[in-house]
Amino acid sequence: MEIIREISLLRARVKEARSQGKLVGLVPTMGCLHQGHLALLDKAKAENGLTILSIFVNPIQFGVGEDYEEYPRHLESDATQVEKAGGQIIFAPTVKEMYPQGYATYIDVERLTAGLCGASRPHHFRGVTTVVAKLFNIATPDNAYFGQKDAQQALVIQRMTKDLNMNVLVHIMPTVREADGLAMSSRNSYLSLAERKAALILSQTLKQVAEKIRGGERDASAIQAFIVEKISLEPLATIDYAAVVDTEEIRPLKEISGRTLIALAVRFGKTRLIDNIILEV
Amino acid sequence: MEIIREISLLRARVKEARSQGKLVGLVPTMGCLHQGHLALLDKAKAENGLTILSIFVNPIQFGVGEDYEEYPRHLESDATQVEKAGGQIIFAPTVKEMYPQGYATYIDVERLTAGLCGASRPHHFRGVTTVVAKLFNIATPDNAYFGQKDAQQALVIQRMTKDLNMNVLVHIMPTVREADGLAMSSRNSYLSLAERKAALILSQTLKQVAEKIRGGERDASAIQAFIVEKISLEPLATIDYAAVVDTEEIRPLKEISGRTLIALAVRFGKTRLIDNIILEV
Repeated sequence: MEIIREISLLRARVKEARSQGKLVGLVPTMGCLHQGHLALLDKAKAENGLTILSIFVNPIQFGVGEDYEEYPRHLESDATQVEKAGGQIIFAPTVKEMYPQGYATYIDVERLTAGLCGASRPHHFRGVTTVVAKLFNIATPDNAYFGQKDAQQALVIQRMTKDLNMNVLVHIMPTVREADGLAMSSRNSYLSLAERKAALILSQTLKQVAEKIRGGERDASAIQAFIVEKISLEPLATIDYAAVVDTEEIRPLKEISGRTLIALAVRFGKTRLIDNIILEV
Repeated sequence: MEIIREISLLRARVKEARSQGKLVGLVPTMGCLHQGHLALLDKAKAENGLTILSIFVNPIQFGVGEDYEEYPRHLESDATQVEKAGGQIIFAPTVKEMYPQGYATYIDVERLTAGLCGASRPHHFRGVTTVVAKLFNIATPDNAYFGQKDAQQALVIQRMTKDLNMNVLVHIMPTVREADGLAMSSRNSYLSLAERKAALILSQTLKQVAEKIRGGERDASAIQAFIVEKISLEPLATIDYAAVVDTEEIRPLKEISGRTLIALAVRFGKTRLIDNIILEV
């Protein structure tokens, strides 16, 4: 397992792999790896001859007052995990390597980024799409893997990839959960014990929502009202949003039909968690 | 010579050429080809095994009230010229092929697009960078060729390519001029005879500016004042801008030093023409 910090060196490794006829897989992460990331790595390893896991806490996707400085960074233990999982390359560039002096270019995906996390984090997705485009151009993967936990992010990246004719297949993999249902997230480490317990309300609510919809509920506002009522009962939880949207345009639905994303963002103290389900209705 | 309209077919041709070890060169144009375009094509042919000249009048780089509808389209005579010049492929996609329903993604290069043509054409460069990124991702060229006549465009594309780590070498080729000095442009066809004659003021002024700077003039505002005075003497000309800027950030200079772009945009009736020189000072 090799940790690469320079863009030019990664390009050389990719070129070498390509000359051997290998497919290239990329798992973009911000590090502080958990089972969710490792499931992406496993899938990438199964489908590609060379797998690159990138670790880069991307400053331009954090807003003012967000947790860029505090975001957990554990490159050493991340490297141990990647090595144990049989990963080949960690690409961990510096901020200066990614955004040298004079940097000026940003990618926006309109409409799909206006609601949900985009509403409370106005420049977040522009930062995400920009860094992912850069990583795609540097690693030139055949396949890239993202977790469904960040559903809006994954859908926005799929849209960008299609719109800009990038030659990358973007895979969205199922959310990996703790035994009690909490979606794995690097930000779970911020939670106090009480908040950790309270955070179960997310997966529990989504499970009940899935049952309701499978049981025939098609009124999006009834589902939203149910979510708000349910989460309001948890005193440590403050709702940021509860959305029922389509997966193409990420637009609020009135009547639930087709591929539907039910997504939540909820604050527990200073920690903002997200979770979601996608249903074929 | 082959005219290709589908993205997937162009990709197949490029893949075939790559498998034969050929370099790929791209000349992006909006058609209505003139000697300037053909000089780019010649250069591309000399440096690449497969040369693609794209013809696409890109709607998203035209503003409301600009000349998108009137922009000259002559695919047949363009094809004759490309064939005669020994070109191999014209890529001429439809608007629907490039921007299918649901399209949402745009690329912005900040700062460098704020002044000059960006000031009077607010969404122009976002349209240019977006379509060029798409063409780069579709044709995956090793080399791409742009004319210096559109100097700001070329510098903005170089910046995007570098910022987004695109694996394309962007070449800026010298402006090709008519015998009397007028920079070749598809928009020259809009000019009346009197306007055509008046338009010589652009290249004449720039020539005198070059002489002044070579003669030691370093005061950018003196150069600007000279340009404004000179062009104001031409009754058919209305100045849009006269700029003296650096070529990295395209920022106005006070004192001329380093690589310097002197760029003009001037209206003759309804026709807006641009011209420029770049000097090493």
